Amino acid sequence: MIRISFLIIMIFSCFGSISFAENHFDLTWKLGYSKTKSEEPGKFIPATVPGAVQLDIARNEKYPPYIFDDNFKKFSWMEDMFYTYETSFKKPSLKSNERLFFTSKGIDYQFEIYINGTKVFAQEGMFTYVNVDLTDNLKDNNMLKILVFPAPKRFPFPVDRTQASNVVKPAVSYEWDWHPRLIPLGIWDETGLEVRNRSYVEDVYLNYELSSDYKKSAITILAAGKETAGSRYRWKLADANGNSVLNSEGEMQDQLSVSGISLENPRLWWPHDQGTPYLYLSTFSLLNTSGEVIQTITQKIGFKRVRLVMNEGAWAEPEDFPKTRSVPPAQFEINGRKIFAKGSNWVNPEIFPGIITKERYTELIDLAVNANLNIFRIWGGGIINKESFFEQCDEKGMLVWEEFPLACNEYPDEPHYLSILKQEATSIIKRLRKHASLALWCGGNELFNNWSGMTDQSLPLRLLNSLCLEYTPVIPFNPTSPMMGMAHGNYIFKTPQGEEVFQEMKRAHNTAYTEFGMPGMSPVEVLKQIIPEKDLFPPKPKTAWETHHAFGAWMGSTWLCPEILEDYFGKASSLEELMQQSQLMQCEGYKAIFEEARRQKPYCAMALNWCYDEPWPAAVNNSLVVYPAICKPAYFAVKNSCRPFLASASISKFRWKEGEDFFAGLWLLNDSFEQKSVQTVTMKIVSGDVTFDLLTWRPGKIKDNTNIAGPTGRLKLPHLEQRQFKLIVEVEGHPEYNSDYTLVYVPNIHAEKDKTPVLNAN
Amino acid sequence: MIRISFLIIMIFSCFGSISFAENHFDLTWKLGYSKTKSEEPGKFIPATVPGAVQLDIARNEKYPPYIFDDNFKKFSWMEDMFYTYETSFKKPSLKSNERLFFTSKGIDYQFEIYINGTKVFAQEGMFTYVNVDLTDNLKDNNMLKILVFPAPKRFPFPVDRTQASNVVKPAVSYEWDWHPRLIPLGIWDETGLEVRNRSYVEDVYLNYELSSDYKKSAITILAAGKETAGSRYRWKLADANGNSVLNSEGEMQDQLSVSGISLENPRLWWPHDQGTPYLYLSTFSLLNTSGEVIQTITQKIGFKRVRLVMNEGAWAEPEDFPKTRSVPPAQFEINGRKIFAKGSNWVNPEIFPGIITKERYTELIDLAVNANLNIFRIWGGGIINKESFFEQCDEKGMLVWEEFPLACNEYPDEPHYLSILKQEATSIIKRLRKHASLALWCGGNELFNNWSGMTDQSLPLRLLNSLCLEYTPVIPFNPTSPMMGMAHGNYIFKTPQGEEVFQEMKRAHNTAYTEFGMPGMSPVEVLKQIIPEKDLFPPKPKTAWETHHAFGAWMGSTWLCPEILEDYFGKASSLEELMQQSQLMQCEGYKAIFEEARRQKPYCAMALNWCYDEPWPAAVNNSLVVYPAICKPAYFAVKNSCRPFLASASISKFRWKEGEDFFAGLWLLNDSFEQKSVQTVTMKIVSGDVTFDLLTWRPGKIKDNTNIAGPTGRLKLPHLEQRQFKLIVEVEGHPEYNSDYTLVYVPNIHAEKDKTPVLNAN
Repeated sequence: MIRISFLIIMIFSCFGSISFAENHFDLTWKLGYSKTKSEEPGKFIPATVPGAVQLDIARNEKYPPYIFDDNFKKFSWMEDMFYTYETSFKKPSLKSNERLFFTSKGIDYQFEIYINGTKVFAQEGMFTYVNVDLTDNLKDNNMLKILVFPAPKRFPFPVDRTQASNVVKPAVSYEWDWHPRLIPLGIWDETGLEVRNRSYVEDVYLNYELSSDYKKSAITILAAGKETAGSRYRWKLADANGNSVLNSEGEMQDQLSVSGISLENPRLWWPHDQGTPYLYLSTFSLLNTSGEVIQTITQKIGFKRVRLVMNEGAWAEPEDFPKTRSVPPAQFEINGRKIFAKGSNWVNPEIFPGIITKERYTELIDLAVNANLNIFRIWGGGIINKESFFEQCDEKGMLVWEEFPLACNEYPDEPHYLSILKQEATSIIKRLRKHASLALWCGGNELFNNWSGMTDQSLPLRLLNSLCLEYTPVIPFNPTSPMMGMAHGNYIFKTPQGEEVFQEMKRAHNTAYTEFGMPGMSPVEVLKQIIPEKDLFPPKPKTAWETHHAFGAWMGSTWLCPEILEDYFGKASSLEELMQQSQLMQCEGYKAIFEEARRQKPYCAMALNWCYDEPWPAAVNNSLVVYPAICKPAYFAVKNSCRPFLASASISKFRWKEGEDFFAGLWLLNDSFEQKSVQTVTMKIVSGDVTFDLLTWRPGKIKDNTNIAGPTGRLKLPHLEQRQFKLIVEVEGHPEYNSDYTLVYVPNIHAEKDKTPVLNAN
Repeated sequence: MIRISFLIIMIFSCFGSISFAENHFDLTWKLGYSKTKSEEPGKFIPATVPGAVQLDIARNEKYPPYIFDDNFKKFSWMEDMFYTYETSFKKPSLKSNERLFFTSKGIDYQFEIYINGTKVFAQEGMFTYVNVDLTDNLKDNNMLKILVFPAPKRFPFPVDRTQASNVVKPAVSYEWDWHPRLIPLGIWDETGLEVRNRSYVEDVYLNYELSSDYKKSAITILAAGKETAGSRYRWKLADANGNSVLNSEGEMQDQLSVSGISLENPRLWWPHDQGTPYLYLSTFSLLNTSGEVIQTITQKIGFKRVRLVMNEGAWAEPEDFPKTRSVPPAQFEINGRKIFAKGSNWVNPEIFPGIITKERYTELIDLAVNANLNIFRIWGGGIINKESFFEQCDEKGMLVWEEFPLACNEYPDEPHYLSILKQEATSIIKRLRKHASLALWCGGNELFNNWSGMTDQSLPLRLLNSLCLEYTPVIPFNPTSPMMGMAHGNYIFKTPQGEEVFQEMKRAHNTAYTEFGMPGMSPVEVLKQIIPEKDLFPPKPKTAWETHHAFGAWMGSTWLCPEILEDYFGKASSLEELMQQSQLMQCEGYKAIFEEARRQKPYCAMALNWCYDEPWPAAVNNSLVVYPAICKPAYFAVKNSCRPFLASASISKFRWKEGEDFFAGLWLLNDSFEQKSVQTVTMKIVSGDVTFDLLTWRPGKIKDNTNIAGPTGRLKLPHLEQRQFKLIVEVEGHPEYNSDYTLVYVPNIHAEKDKTPVLNAN
């Protein structure tokens, strides 16, 4: 039996630490399962908490790794079992004013809790924290049991995501075009026993209102206590250096509301690319009648104002009668400053969220900050992340667009679903509203498109709008993404009709590109961990390539798209060559989209690619980061395209032929909040040893947060020896602003032999 | 002094009558005004209640009629005064268990109430009923005073509708392109004294849920009482013949909720063109401890289900990547049946809503039913109508799209405005939700267009969504009109660019046309009541024509549009001729729009013209009905175009030239829920005595609720003597399905003389 050192959980450690309870328990969990609820499990195996029932079984029964081949299919029987977690413990010695609680930050999905055979709690929903007072049912030796129900399914068939369309549980687990079908169950976040004083603070929320000039933050302390009448509270706010800047003290009440507290000249919280993500530290203490501190809750707080405002130029549309409405706003304004949102779509970094650690979040968030991204869209197909995710986004200055767990389904207007959604959403909102990084609520993913079938009239979305208004009126709310004027897709480099991403983006006119993908292969060393040696090359459908989403994932031959690769680059003769082709296509595709979206600023205000990370190693995926945290070349390409300031080329297509008039527009893209000064920018084509200068431009000063278009470089393409060439834009004296693009070249045996470059300034 | 027979108001007569209070009071109101709140009025004049302070002053000071010339401008000083209503009364003899209340269904807009010098009540908001218990402040002789504040203005300038952008008061009063600036103030709905038993029922609401097959209605009685503990209630539901079908009896509570009541096979409520607007009668009685009935509340109830569902074909859009969302639903489904909404935009039928009577509503609603209209959009620029409006819509089967009082302004996210909006909207929702006719809530008019500047993030609209969800989840909610895919406008026959309404509608592709206008002149006898004799002809700007919106109202030379009339018809030589031209244009324009919108079914599901009625006689207006209830020729044209079944011609333009190839498509439009059978339809052109047959069509059966397109009739236009011709479509044996259209003809002196009609069947 694995012994798990069982800490007294710091409940509300989401808000920092609570100092009063320092007892430790050594607890051991075991797990059993049965086909029916009434049946007792035949045997028990050691359980890891937090984790997932599947992982315990796989460990105990020595299942091969689920990332390899189609091993994950071995788990499917586990969907329909009832699971029993059990642990026994001796009653701790409790003072007369102490109570023993069972607490959990997450049990997935429907469950009942028994102490010594008595049912003391039941819940449907994995995001509402559990707090059960066990005291009155304690014996000297206690048996705690958690009965977890089978994976919820709206109906037995079809076996797909629609089974999750009436539960507040990530739909992605039911299978997606980049995610295997594996439906986690069990205890998935910090869980344990906690000794609480009878007089106890359950929650502290600092509500604040910034004055319009940002010079004052009016703070209201809202604290919810139990049996706290007669106690006192003491509160202080310290700056990042630990200096106390505000404090308050008074009589505690079960529903405490202290207003009239004002912070003058607050340092504002900014996303990392706009300033410092400045955080203050709040310390709230509960004092007993003797004036002793019996509980302390600390939490960080950042002061910011976020709004979604109209995109520049959007009010001028539509022009014609009969006239419909203007598009909804999709321009983030942070502390009064309009910013271009450069981001990525975050998906669960593990198939089983129970094993996501703070460190997993750290490496992924750090990489995103490093890639010049300022926002994560937490896609509605996945979980609501653990507290350590938001704590780090707060600290590191990443904005968070948070979706509720609804995606690509028609979630119903049914009373039971609505009641669970209300419970879960309320818990989610009350937890996340404390975080400075929270920038946008969103009902879920693609709910207003035909594959989902929800509409503005759908009660689940009206309910979410209503709850967000009640608890966080200062945070914008969108019922879904895309909204009118925003767009999702495309996810391929070239359509079957022959339109490349270059042309598609140039004809697009959207306020925000909040999903767009470009598939790229994982590195060969990763592929070897997931695909049997014999199947590695050439990739074929009906092998581990397909279970890992290289074939038959989405439309056409996604995500490998071999015919597109072969068309541009010729047939690959090795896995390494194929990988390079695929990764080059991903790099150039993502550069084309991110930079074109930025050129469409200020009408366009967001570019968020699909997707950032992945929960297991896919063979081919639109992700920038391969599981667990391996950067693809596309990661670096996107990092470059998202620099606050860069020289960029506007290119109209990927493949060029000998003799063709090549042309590309030169731009300087400035998302930074400084004026930039650039003396000389040049554009050239390099093919092997040959270089052709296309233009020299002397732009001078570039206003803050403003792009400027420069001249167009032109060249009648001469005969070149290589099948690819590079277009390079260089800023003299500032290599950090340079960009380059790899393009495909087709020699023409009939082309003129005149190799003189033609320079054209228009 | 005018003596007003002052009934004890039947409070909740909205729900029928209350029988316990039958005392009468003879009360007399008088009115005074002052420049400041503290100042006493210099004198008092007789007041009519309900009414408006302006009407009392005008009557007393013998102002000329405000409808004539620019007389309304004489009222402008009244905007900024404080008004005092006073009445005195002897204390009635009250039994020990009785209380005397002051009750009012509407005081406009901000006010305070004093009894014998003591302030007992204050309110901002004209739609929340007032109930003030005066008992404890009564003397033998009592002075009741209502102090009404000046017209609210967000700022002194500009003097326009934006002054109303932070109040829940109709913006239209601040001037509109068809409404003079006249801002009503004062007591505008039933008001008086009421003796109540101490034990009293304040509200009864029958909430019901229809089963999906409509075979069962599960009813919950929700009653709110005061000091009703120990009392009992008795409730019965009777059918339209007075036969009791359900009853319930039990102990009364201050918050009574009685569920588990089920009506089997309820007769459903239908809009008048779909079935019977069947109403049941609910009688709720409060019994004292002796079992005597001390209060009875009756109300009618109709059982229906209304939904907004996706328009047919709308899920298939958008097609391309990057892909935005699909349009929101704009297809009404009533009791499971998709219906085409044919309606009109309702505006206040009086400048001063205090003088709207039940009879005014009756004549206007009856005319709309008679015109084959099935829905009113109660436009957000006006008031929330009085109870007698909704009672009649319930009885007569008119659907009601109800907007909150927000229109064409940027209503702010300010706490004070939001608190008044919450109070008023809650009152409105709780009152109107009892009505079977209620089909749609809407936040207000054109709020998501640039002239308003609100967005999906605006808190007032999020609040309204939230309140409607809380109190009426079964009624659809739209934040504004137009929504994405819906459209407003145009409001002129031909644009300055030369596009006629015929072409505009053919290129339009909208789910719902919820506003479109076509100006037409009022009859000459009406014009004589509003325009000085000397200015009658020719109409000129800067005269009463302009104050009555013939010039400078909206874009261009609206609403007279003389250059369009002259272009089509030549210069009119008399007022009568000009009126005929204008009215013809209005008729043909409205026919073109209504019938084209119907041809676009099922993608299109609504056609609602701007506007139905008017609050004073405009010289020229888009209305169908001239103040007070005079039908324009366009009324009859629209009535014809809205027949459930008709033959219709699809015409591409208004003016045709000699020698041109005339063509028109023949359609049969069926909004009825019966299959129709038509043997023979013909199309012909008639000019004076000459007739040209264009085609004969034998369509056979036409499915219920379905249109069919027939052949196109063609004719090379010969030389004709007259400058107009008629296109006539006739259904053999069914003259009630015939249609005709008047078109303009231009002879060509160079045209060929070949007058042989060319019949072309393709």
